[in-house]
Amino acid sequence: MTGKLFIVGTGPGNPAQMTPETREAISAATEFFGYGPYLDRLDLRADQHRIASDNREELDRAQAALVRAAAGADVCVVSGGDPGIFAMAAAVCEAIDNGPAEWRKVDLVITPGVTAMLAVAARIGAPLGHDFCAMSLSDNLKPWEVITKRLRLAAEAGLVIALYNPISKTRPWQLGEAFAILRQVLPPHVPVIFGRAAGRPDERITVMPLGEADANRADMATCVIIGSPETRIVPRDGKPDLVYTPRSFTGESL
Amino acid sequence: MTGKLFIVGTGPGNPAQMTPETREAISAATEFFGYGPYLDRLDLRADQHRIASDNREELDRAQAALVRAAAGADVCVVSGGDPGIFAMAAAVCEAIDNGPAEWRKVDLVITPGVTAMLAVAARIGAPLGHDFCAMSLSDNLKPWEVITKRLRLAAEAGLVIALYNPISKTRPWQLGEAFAILRQVLPPHVPVIFGRAAGRPDERITVMPLGEADANRADMATCVIIGSPETRIVPRDGKPDLVYTPRSFTGESL
Repeated sequence: MTGKLFIVGTGPGNPAQMTPETREAISAATEFFGYGPYLDRLDLRADQHRIASDNREELDRAQAALVRAAAGADVCVVSGGDPGIFAMAAAVCEAIDNGPAEWRKVDLVITPGVTAMLAVAARIGAPLGHDFCAMSLSDNLKPWEVITKRLRLAAEAGLVIALYNPISKTRPWQLGEAFAILRQVLPPHVPVIFGRAAGRPDERITVMPLGEADANRADMATCVIIGSPETRIVPRDGKPDLVYTPRSFTGESL
Repeated sequence: MTGKLFIVGTGPGNPAQMTPETREAISAATEFFGYGPYLDRLDLRADQHRIASDNREELDRAQAALVRAAAGADVCVVSGGDPGIFAMAAAVCEAIDNGPAEWRKVDLVITPGVTAMLAVAARIGAPLGHDFCAMSLSDNLKPWEVITKRLRLAAEAGLVIALYNPISKTRPWQLGEAFAILRQVLPPHVPVIFGRAAGRPDERITVMPLGEADANRADMATCVIIGSPETRIVPRDGKPDLVYTPRSFTGESL
């Protein structure tokens, strides 16, 4: 008999931002597969087992979870944020697509979550209030040329750009290069938001104009949001600036 | 003394997908501004007052809420999904930007939520598992030419496209026209997901190839997700197909 495979998103890390649906899915499973720091966010019972793996072993982890679910275990694959955004849901679907027939019989339950860019946006105003895109800046899984082409087209389209995976120890230069490319298309006043660990105790959210944006402000826990030419800053005495992108657009800057 | 202004996202409509943080914000406020059907999702106490307005009066609603918060009331502005995605957070920021100085003194608390595209994606696999964009198809607040330009550029960039506000009584032809434009750029096999009321009792999620996509399948409660050339369908005996966009991309189709 086949078990269930839950794929859950914990949200950005603040327990108050995890949905009851996700909490219930976690309660129903007994084996947990995920990146160690995401598993650390769960408050597991003694009968619930952790199988932690490294951040970059997504496909192996998906396959291991499917093996156990196909064998009858109730398994939970854990992502931070939302499992469908640069996370485990795609890895599990990929594994099913290319795996043995019995994996297609596993009951999949995917619970959505608050993804990082939404948590960052909520802390600073409404930078994603108009059309936007979300891209992973990692060139581990796609060529750098594809990324640069997409950055240019997104900026030409006037989309706000949310960058996931902006930087890591093995990818130190890509974010600086991305800023340089965007400076060729966008005006220097465009606000860039470095949204680190939004909603968590170590949260740090800073804003600087694209013309001065410094890639060293980002780390692996940062989601970077680059405004469009329409994105505005509202200064407030004694409170952080608000950053928002107006709902309406005349089309003049395109 | 200034009151608090909460801007909350209820999530897609399933109470189990509303975060505890949002629930707490709702509990702390006494006056609720929002589109009637979103206010209907809340379980308000006798001392909590509803001020419902029409879906299209966002700026008026934001201003009315700010007047009350500046006067000392604890006010909650309610969006479906996430308040930062084509919703009330931008309208409130706009009102503050252009309003009297005292509105900048109001304490703003924005709580993120599960936005429609995440809920739809979770019900069908991982269509947003690679780079994507989110656009409002409404031409009430931007020229139609801007929308068509963005659709073309997004498709050329190989982004999956999530369309909010795909259709309404006063905007009956735009979605069909958007499909026609995308057919000029994308292959006909690209899956189109019509995700209606994801997670709610009246949920209806259907998939068809772009070549046959019928705009009549969408209504105001639908989020439409158009795949990229890489997006794949995994058939499963006795279970709905999975639709996902692989995490990796060789760049060959660009």
